[in-house]
Amino acid sequence: MTDPLQTGATIGILGGGQLGRMLSVAASRLGLKTHIYEPGANPPAADVAHACTTASYDDEAALRAFAEAVDVITYEFENIPTSALDLLEPLKPIRPGRRALAVSQDRLVEKAFLSEQGLGTAPFAAVDDEVDLAEAIEEIGTPAILKTRRLGYDGKGQARIMAPEDAEAALADMAGAPAILEGFIEFTREVSVIGARGLDGSVACFDPGENIHRDGILHSTTVPATLSPAQRSDAVLIAAKILNALDYVGVMGVELFVTPKGLLVNEIAPRVHNSGHWTQNGCLIDQFEQHIRAVAGWPLGDGSRHANVMTENLIGADVARVGELAGTNTAIHLYGKAEVKPGRKMGHINRITGPAS
Amino acid sequence: MTDPLQTGATIGILGGGQLGRMLSVAASRLGLKTHIYEPGANPPAADVAHACTTASYDDEAALRAFAEAVDVITYEFENIPTSALDLLEPLKPIRPGRRALAVSQDRLVEKAFLSEQGLGTAPFAAVDDEVDLAEAIEEIGTPAILKTRRLGYDGKGQARIMAPEDAEAALADMAGAPAILEGFIEFTREVSVIGARGLDGSVACFDPGENIHRDGILHSTTVPATLSPAQRSDAVLIAAKILNALDYVGVMGVELFVTPKGLLVNEIAPRVHNSGHWTQNGCLIDQFEQHIRAVAGWPLGDGSRHANVMTENLIGADVARVGELAGTNTAIHLYGKAEVKPGRKMGHINRITGPAS
Repeated sequence: MTDPLQTGATIGILGGGQLGRMLSVAASRLGLKTHIYEPGANPPAADVAHACTTASYDDEAALRAFAEAVDVITYEFENIPTSALDLLEPLKPIRPGRRALAVSQDRLVEKAFLSEQGLGTAPFAAVDDEVDLAEAIEEIGTPAILKTRRLGYDGKGQARIMAPEDAEAALADMAGAPAILEGFIEFTREVSVIGARGLDGSVACFDPGENIHRDGILHSTTVPATLSPAQRSDAVLIAAKILNALDYVGVMGVELFVTPKGLLVNEIAPRVHNSGHWTQNGCLIDQFEQHIRAVAGWPLGDGSRHANVMTENLIGADVARVGELAGTNTAIHLYGKAEVKPGRKMGHINRITGPAS
Repeated sequence: MTDPLQTGATIGILGGGQLGRMLSVAASRLGLKTHIYEPGANPPAADVAHACTTASYDDEAALRAFAEAVDVITYEFENIPTSALDLLEPLKPIRPGRRALAVSQDRLVEKAFLSEQGLGTAPFAAVDDEVDLAEAIEEIGTPAILKTRRLGYDGKGQARIMAPEDAEAALADMAGAPAILEGFIEFTREVSVIGARGLDGSVACFDPGENIHRDGILHSTTVPATLSPAQRSDAVLIAAKILNALDYVGVMGVELFVTPKGLLVNEIAPRVHNSGHWTQNGCLIDQFEQHIRAVAGWPLGDGSRHANVMTENLIGADVARVGELAGTNTAIHLYGKAEVKPGRKMGHINRITGPAS
C-alpha cells in the first residue's frame, strides 16, 4: 500500500499510553481514525480512539482481528514482542518497518548499526558472561555502565561499574540476560533531534532540544538547545543519516551527547519521543501529526519552529502542581491517568519563553 | 458543582459534529473524557470520544443515562429541543446556561436582549401574520429580510423582501412559523469576536476575525481583521458585555457588522464558532480548550495571538483540494466525514500568513 490514506481510514496503534493518545488526536485532525491495541485496562489512548482492543501480545486471534480492522499499523513503544510483529507483518504494513525495531530493541545491534554508519557512540562491548565482562572492562575501562541488551528504559536494567570490583554485582543485576558494557561519556549536555521521514523518502527534522534528566527520567526539554550553528546542523544531519539508512517511515527520536570530541549518539527511539512534546506548541505541525502523516503516506508538514519553548514533565505527584503552573504562556497536556504513582508520567507543560530565536 | 473537574471526569456534549469533535480533542489535553449525545449515526465526534450515545432528543431514558454518566453538560449547537434541556437541567449543570440558549434560539428574543443592553442591531420587528408584516415593512422599509424566529442557520429559513410586493411570497416561505423582519444593513465588513467567560466570571476574548461568506456559508476568516484600534476595542467590549449580561460560562461567537454608524451585532452563537478555528494555529490556547476550561471550571487560558492566520473552510468538494493546499505554513483540519455533499463542512485549513501584527 503506497497510496495516501483517505478520510475515514484507520491507523492501528500498538500501545495505548500517552504517546498513542496524542497520536490519536493528531490522526483525528487529518480525518483518520485510530484503533488501539493494548494489554492493559483503560489505556489513556482509548479515550480519544475510534476503537480499542484489550488483549495481550500473544493473543493471535485478537492480533488478526486488529490487523483486519486497520489499514496500516504503527506503534508507540519499541519493545513489541517479535512473535506479534511476525504475525502482523504479512497482514498489514507496519510503519516504521521491522529493521528500525530490530535495531532499537537491542542496544548491541543499535550501537553496531550506528558504528557502521560512521557515527560516534560510547565505546561498547557485548557481555554474555564474566569472561566477556572482564575483557570489556579491560578494553573500555571504568567507570562504565552494564546494561541489558533488551527491554531497558528510564534507567531500569542498568548497573554502574565504578571500578573493576563492581563487576560481579553488576553482572548479577542483569539476571542472566545478554548485556552490553558501555563506557562513560563526558558530555556537556544532552540534546535530541526529532526527525521524520515520509513514505516518499523526504526528511524533515525539528530543531534540536536540550534535555535534562532527573532520577533517570526526562525532566525538561528546552528549545533552542545551547548549540553552535555547526553543532545544530551536525545534529540534524546525524538524524537524517539514520532515517535514510533504515529506509525509515515515521518519526524517530535521536538522543545525542555533546562532547569535546563532537556529537555522539546515545540512543534512538523508533517513535514519537517525550523530548519532542515541545513541538505541540512551538510548531505548526507537531511530532505526532508528522508521524501520522508519514505513516499515512501523506507529505510531511511544515515543522518549522515559531517559538522558544520549555517542556516540563509532570511526574507522579508533580501533576498536583498543574493549577499553579497553568499560568500565562503555558499550555497544559494531561494524559487522563486517574491513579498517581511515583515515577509515572502524568502529563507535561509547554511554556512559551519567547518568539523563536 | 463549582469545583474544577479533575482528571478522568467526563464532559457530556450534546451534538456530535465537527465542533464536538474538536471540543473532545481539547478535553483530552486537559485529562478529561467526553461523552457525545447525537441522534445521527457515526458522528465525527465519536471518533475521539470516550463514549457516544446514539439516541434522539426525545428519548428520555437515554437522556437520563447520559446525564448519569457525565459530570457537566455542554453542547456544540444551540437548537437543542427545550424538552431535552428541561429533563437534563435538574440532573447535571448545563454550561453555558439556559438563558444563553433561550436568547440565541429565538432571533426576536436575541435582538430584544441586545437592544436592552444598549447594543446596536439591525432594525427589527416581530411578524406573525400579514398585518404584522405590512406594518413592519412600513416601519423598517425595504430591502429587508424575513427570517423564522427559530431554527435557521447558514441562510436557511430566510426570504429577502426587495420591495413591498415580495411580502406575500416571503411570508409563505415561513410556512406559518413565527418570524422577524430585519432591515438591511449597509456594512463594510463582517467581523466576529470569540469570547470566553469562566465560572469565576473572568472574561477573555480572542482578537476579532474578519469573515467572508459565500452562498450564505462562512468561506474564510482572517486575523487580524481590518479594524481601527478603536473598533477592535469596541468589538471586544461588546462581546464582554454580552457574556457578562448572560452570566455566561463557556465560549461564545459574536458576529458584528462594521457600519458607518459603528458596530452592530448581527447574531450570537452560544458555542464554539466556525469563525474561531484560526485560534487552533494562531494561539497557545484555542477556542475549543477555552470552552472546555470554562465548562470544567478551570481558569481560562492564555488566548493571545502569535500569528496572522487565514482560515478557509473546505465545503463539499473543496476537500479534494486538500492535497494541493497542504503546503508550507498551512495546517489541515479534517472532520472525518466519509461522504462528501454539496454545502457540507468537510474541514478547514489554517494558513499562517506571518507573525502576529
